[in-house]
Formats: sequence, structure tokens, C-alpha cells
Amino acid sequence: MQSPVPHELPIYRRIADRLRQAIQAGEFHDGDRLPGENALMAEYGIARATARQALSVLINEGVAVPRRGSGVYVRQFRPIRRHGSRRLSRERWGTGRAIWDGDTAGRPYTVDELEIAREPAVDEAARVLGCAEVWVRRRRYSVDGRPVQLAASCFPAELVEGSPVTRPDTGPGGVYARLRDLGHAPAHFTEEVRARMPAPEERDRLGLSAGTPVIVVCRTAFAAGGEAVELNTMIMDAASYVLQYDFDA
Amino acid sequence: MQSPVPHELPIYRRIADRLRQAIQAGEFHDGDRLPGENALMAEYGIARATARQALSVLINEGVAVPRRGSGVYVRQFRPIRRHGSRRLSRERWGTGRAIWDGDTAGRPYTVDELEIAREPAVDEAARVLGCAEVWVRRRRYSVDGRPVQLAASCFPAELVEGSPVTRPDTGPGGVYARLRDLGHAPAHFTEEVRARMPAPEERDRLGLSAGTPVIVVCRTAFAAGGEAVELNTMIMDAASYVLQYDFDA
Repeated sequence: MQSPVPHELPIYRRIADRLRQAIQAGEFHDGDRLPGENALMAEYGIARATARQALSVLINEGVAVPRRGSGVYVRQFRPIRRHGSRRLSRERWGTGRAIWDGDTAGRPYTVDELEIAREPAVDEAARVLGCAEVWVRRRRYSVDGRPVQLAASCFPAELVEGSPVTRPDTGPGGVYARLRDLGHAPAHFTEEVRARMPAPEERDRLGLSAGTPVIVVCRTAFAAGGEAVELNTMIMDAASYVLQYDFDA
Repeated sequence: MQSPVPHELPIYRRIADRLRQAIQAGEFHDGDRLPGENALMAEYGIARATARQALSVLINEGVAVPRRGSGVYVRQFRPIRRHGSRRLSRERWGTGRAIWDGDTAGRPYTVDELEIAREPAVDEAARVLGCAEVWVRRRRYSVDGRPVQLAASCFPAELVEGSPVTRPDTGPGGVYARLRDLGHAPAHFTEEVRARMPAPEERDRLGLSAGTPVIVVCRTAFAAGGEAVELNTMIMDAASYVLQYDFDA
């Protein structure tokens, strides 16, 4: 850290910039401990409050994560690469494989919360599916033992009533294979991607640290006739995901 | 707001939950002024600090935006719908149209910062494009007069040297039409989507308010032979964008 520091910015922000550059340059790696308050005070001749402020900038950006009583660490980022189109290809669920097996590339994942209910359709589900009642499957997914995604899939109630879609175990290939069995195989998908800060309940359920947004993906599945057969709203820990989409010109 | 409030949470958070629900239920619309500190103090019999804390929750989530000396308002969200595949179809740039015209649906957009340079290739650009030097086009886009996106497109220097890709005005259909003229028309695209909090410089250049993450899209354009001809890194104000992707099962 020998290069001159630009002087227009407050000192805590210049120190934060230095640390960020050092992380980007590979001087610190994922999971490494950053210099603590005492080290920064000694190196820059600053007060403890200023050192704390510099580290807070990186924590609020999500670049670093505090561990109680231990210090501040470079955030571990070992993302799940979620491949928008390939993962939903008919060859996958049509041959009885789970969509998530492709995402995690062998890392263990679990559905550690599952709630299934028949409910009145509200908001987007009512609008997109055009029905009065839906079956909803609410799940939380964890990878490597850490929660990464909350998902809520809604299906038109009349369409799936009495089928395995309304039961915990949907069988090989999951809900899309079962929609196919019912004569409503998904033929086309639309995904809408947004990002925002989590609501408190989402932050709690996903165990998000400060400075971590969520990626919200709303996927609609359409059958060959054009009717919407599922609306799935996914809330993802943004620090755990890279979404990949491929398409031709 | 007559329904009972659950009692496990601190009062400021319960009030924030109430206000969020009221916004979601449509009692307050985009741009509406929320009840101020005085109104919350009177309604709930709380201290000013508690009222301020409740409003801070919504500001930090990006649900509400403070305006100096005027109060706290529901965030205006009039997103740009960015259609991943359709916008990059050959029919668009191949017939001389600008990609952005499709995104903004008639809303005026401008490139209000443009910097073009030949530079050594670093990081992702070196890895993806596999070359020692690149031409980089750095732009800031504004819509309705507000900055919404920073983009940096890198091209292999030898490939585009002397062509309009290295000049401010790239002509009808933009850089993709010019790559076609050079015999390297993009045939396939990969987009990687991430979300994170902005670095201070990004926050300043995009004029982001508190609680606003950025969506980062890294797009690689491949020519028919499979060689990468562009890497474009886009930093988007998450409050201004919905990304849409369509694909078949």
C-alpha cells in the first residue's frame, strides 16, 4: 500500500478504497482476515472511530463480513451458477432429473422448509394465472448447509388438484414432469430479474449479513397452448448466485 | 391500520412492517409522502427517535426515499424493461436500429458520458477475449434525465483498430453492425447477472440513494466461429431495471 492516496475524500473512505483495491488485486483472498482496528490505527495514525468507519464501508458494501469477537473478513463468494435456459430444458425434467442437481454441480443441497397450501390467488399470481385459487409450494433451499433461496411456486388450483403437485414428494422430474403428465407440459418460460434489499423477514430466513441484497426472479411457465401453468417467485441471496443466460443473435 | 400488531418484534420494526404492508396493499402509491415523524409519534405514542428508526428501516430497504426538509416518500419505480434476447436480435442492429430504443419504449435516453481508449487488457477482459490490448468504450446512460447505467465494452484491439468502433459515432446499428462489417458479426451471447451493493464511486456516478443495490451484467458476444468479440460490463441502478429473459423448455 505504498501508492499515494487521493486527497479529496475523507480519510475513512480513502482507507476503505485502499482495502478494496487490495482485495481486488488479490492481496487478500476470500475468507482472509482484514487488518483490524488496531492495525489501521497504527498504520494510518487515525482514531479508533475512523478505523471502524473505514471497515464499515466495506461491510455495508458486502465486500467484507464481521465475525463477532474475531475481526472483519473478506466475504467468501463461491457462487451457485444458475443457468437460466439449460437447467429448464425438457431433457432434464423429462428424464426425471431434479433441476437443482445441475445448479449446484455436486454440492449438497437440501429443501429444509416446505409448506404446501391451497389459497386464494392474490396479486401477480391472480393476474398471471388468471384463476381464483392456487396451490402454493413454499420452500427454502440450503446449499452447503447455508440457506440461499426462498421460493414460492403457484399453480392454478383446478389444474393440479389431486395430483402429486399438491404433495411433498412430486416424484422423478418434479412438478414440471407432473404438469406434463396432466397434459400441460411447460413449453416456454419467462424470467423477470430484479434486485433490492431484503425485507427483515427475508433477511432473517436467509441469514443475510449487512450489505447483502436479494435477487428476485419471477418465472412464468407457459404450456404449448400459451396458458400460464406456474408462477414461481424466487428470493435469492445475491452473495450466493450468478445467473447465466445464453441466447443467439 | 386496525389489525393487531404481533408483539415479538421491537416497536419500530412493527411500525415499519405496517407501513410496508400499507405500501404493498396500495394504500400508498409510488411517490406518495409517508406519515412523518410527528404523525407516527401521535398515532403510536412513541418517541421521535423510534419514529425515525421505523422510517430508517424502509429507507435502508430501498422501499422509501428521504427528501431533504420535505419528508419520506414511497420510492418511484418506473422500471426499464430490458429484454435480454429480443433486444439483441440480428433484426434489430442488422437494420441499423439502436438497442436502447427497444429498452426505454419511447422514454428519452442519452449517453451523457463517453470515453474511448486503447488499453492493456486486464482481469476478465484478458481472460475472455484472450488478447493483450483492448479498445474500451465507457459510457453512462441516463433515462428521463437520471443516470441508470454505467457500461464498459471491451473489444480485442487488433480486431477493431481503425474501425468506427474506436470512434464516438459508430453509425447505424452501433458496434454490432460494425463488427459484422469487419466479418465478426455476433452470433451468440452469454449474460451473467449478479447483484451487490455499489462501490462509493458507482453510487456517486449513478446518484443512488441509500438501500439501492446495483445489478451487474457481464455480457460476452461470440462470433459464429466461437471467438469472443466483445465483453461488456454493465452496472445498473437496481431500482430502475427489470431484466427479462425468455426461453423454451
